[in-house]
Amino acid sequence: MIKANEHYSKLKASYLFADIAKRVEKYQLANPEKQIIKLGIGDVTKALAPAVIKGFHDGVNEMADDATFRGYGPSPGYEFLRQAIAKNDFQDRGADISADEIFVSDGAKCDTGNFQELFATDIKVAIPDPVYPAYLDTNVMAGRTGEFENGRYNGIVYMDCLKENNFMPELPNEDVDLIYLCFPNNPTGSIATKQELKKWVDYAKDNKALILFDAAYEAFIRDKNLPRTIYEIEGAKEVAVEFRSFSKTAGFTGTRCGFIVVPKECMIFNAKNEKISLHDMWDRRHSTKFNGVSYPVQKAAFAVYSDEGKIQVKKQIDYYLNNADIISKAVEELGFDYVGGEHSPYIWIDGKDKNSWDFFDLLLNKASVVCTPGAGFGRCGEQYIRISAFNSLENVILAMSRIKEALA
Amino acid sequence: MIKANEHYSKLKASYLFADIAKRVEKYQLANPEKQIIKLGIGDVTKALAPAVIKGFHDGVNEMADDATFRGYGPSPGYEFLRQAIAKNDFQDRGADISADEIFVSDGAKCDTGNFQELFATDIKVAIPDPVYPAYLDTNVMAGRTGEFENGRYNGIVYMDCLKENNFMPELPNEDVDLIYLCFPNNPTGSIATKQELKKWVDYAKDNKALILFDAAYEAFIRDKNLPRTIYEIEGAKEVAVEFRSFSKTAGFTGTRCGFIVVPKECMIFNAKNEKISLHDMWDRRHSTKFNGVSYPVQKAAFAVYSDEGKIQVKKQIDYYLNNADIISKAVEELGFDYVGGEHSPYIWIDGKDKNSWDFFDLLLNKASVVCTPGAGFGRCGEQYIRISAFNSLENVILAMSRIKEALA
Repeated sequence: MIKANEHYSKLKASYLFADIAKRVEKYQLANPEKQIIKLGIGDVTKALAPAVIKGFHDGVNEMADDATFRGYGPSPGYEFLRQAIAKNDFQDRGADISADEIFVSDGAKCDTGNFQELFATDIKVAIPDPVYPAYLDTNVMAGRTGEFENGRYNGIVYMDCLKENNFMPELPNEDVDLIYLCFPNNPTGSIATKQELKKWVDYAKDNKALILFDAAYEAFIRDKNLPRTIYEIEGAKEVAVEFRSFSKTAGFTGTRCGFIVVPKECMIFNAKNEKISLHDMWDRRHSTKFNGVSYPVQKAAFAVYSDEGKIQVKKQIDYYLNNADIISKAVEELGFDYVGGEHSPYIWIDGKDKNSWDFFDLLLNKASVVCTPGAGFGRCGEQYIRISAFNSLENVILAMSRIKEALA
Repeated sequence: MIKANEHYSKLKASYLFADIAKRVEKYQLANPEKQIIKLGIGDVTKALAPAVIKGFHDGVNEMADDATFRGYGPSPGYEFLRQAIAKNDFQDRGADISADEIFVSDGAKCDTGNFQELFATDIKVAIPDPVYPAYLDTNVMAGRTGEFENGRYNGIVYMDCLKENNFMPELPNEDVDLIYLCFPNNPTGSIATKQELKKWVDYAKDNKALILFDAAYEAFIRDKNLPRTIYEIEGAKEVAVEFRSFSKTAGFTGTRCGFIVVPKECMIFNAKNEKISLHDMWDRRHSTKFNGVSYPVQKAAFAVYSDEGKIQVKKQIDYYLNNADIISKAVEELGFDYVGGEHSPYIWIDGKDKNSWDFFDLLLNKASVVCTPGAGFGRCGEQYIRISAFNSLENVILAMSRIKEALA
């Protein structure tokens, strides 16, 4: 008899963004005349940059001729792209990462979801709360948790991120083996200094733990003193893996490209406590279960690193950062406490007496604005909502004026 | 202490095609003047069809304008593509599959690798030998096998495919829960009739087992009486999942698109022996760990189903089938036994006294031709090699003449 993976039955409700989509669809059906403004899912809205479009078309053109056609590519990605990533995103910032430590993928969601496969089932996992739901759900599916009780999965070490600690996870009181961190943070928009990250690198070294560092939003950092990669921290190469994405950096949410950095120094342990190369394990996983990213997509991603590409992509991020600034100011005027909106496209708003799904429904029904209810990110998000800066300037201005009216 | 997934240590050597690539690279470095002809990995060589290129460019153009830009798409794929698949690949052949039973992905390798996650660890898995290595390796990684001994993993039910049984897997003598089948077969090129598939569907029904049916090569079938999908068999919707790919159908090996069919009738069982919807489980997995296929790639795949697309793509397959015919005839002239080459791009050749890696090295060193050693597909492949028809007509003719000379 074909039996199911029992751990799936522990998963709560459906996936957050699917849930939101259903409520929005229902509202739109009931109110077909309303122009809904989506500041929810964190999906970019601006067209791909001209340089990226050119690279994309060039790639497609190569596929049109037998002489330049590309079949299966190297599973970690084309050398030309990995070299550009290593140089621009790491070496130029003083982080000693080489092209062969980079694995190109179809996005950070897949990577953050899949990477946990490399670890034993009985490791202790520390996850911030609130957090991007995929970290948690994929560990539930893999059997690293008990049942869901009082809003949390047994077996997980939750790191509360609240106003009291400036929304920064604190070192756990118990030993943990795998630590998820995300800066600039999704959903709170909080950002870690080098000192803050060093604390985690030191902890990981002292405890033979591993950090999974999600830096999908690093392009939003404008302060040169803030780290844009964890490898700016000394020793991080031994204890940290970094997830990156072109989704928020260059508008690739519908184009699909990201990458993981797995440094060769990074070691984990087998049952005999012997060191094992995490790089080799991921290489094996990647080449067994993945067949590389579409060649024209890799050409498009490569164009992000061209001189024009860099300028155009920075301009897009500046545009979203300006939106974030407008949202922050409006939220402040309304008298809500918030964090984020600086070095980040997200504004995390304290609804005070409002439950986050109620706050979500209120904004949807009274202002036709979609946000993300904080509860979808964990128990600590229960009185918060996340507003995203990913939309047109016009829509952001309109949305904030509607919200002001609705809450007046 | 961060501990590794111990099951990875059971994996033998590196992944087959990576292994071959290394030998080829070494040979080319030592013999820079040699023009190597690759009839190994099964990678297409012909450019994407003009209709597909047009669809691809159109998709990229939409990404260039804010008004038509696409961000995150629906995780199972765009409706326009799923509708086209359902109609053309299934409904038009009398198989009652609807668009919402289709999940578009970045390729069948990922899908066949990932799908096993939905099942309990202690199910009994039946896998043909020889077989596409990813089926086996991904089950090893998931802990469904014991150690590797005498060329096989303990715990797996191997279904020998040999000359004696026409290279067709036979119903297992013991109860199995999950059955991998692949027709037209990779690597043997053998093909199943409706009667043959019905035997498996009946077995699955009688034993509450599930069939994972890999139909990546269905486009090579030219005999109208042969099934191109398992859903041509009555009752298959209750007990079979089908994997499909645009890689071999339309030359998408470097473009990356495939899909899975998970019929809504398909049920598996929880620990209490209650029925669970496999469709719902995969939907949850897909939306949690995957973020959809690149929009321009989906537009390119959609163009495969246009009137011009269908004609152009069929012409490409005909071209490869003609190559397969040439290879078959040459192999026959050389006096080797073989199977495949008809309704399939693969020819599976019995090397008789030759070990398959020796045969591989002989063809590489004496004819500068790359094939795939049968041993890489399992113990039953140890005296076989696989030759693929994916190359230009000129190269296929040249390769066969070189092989004839080398073996003279």
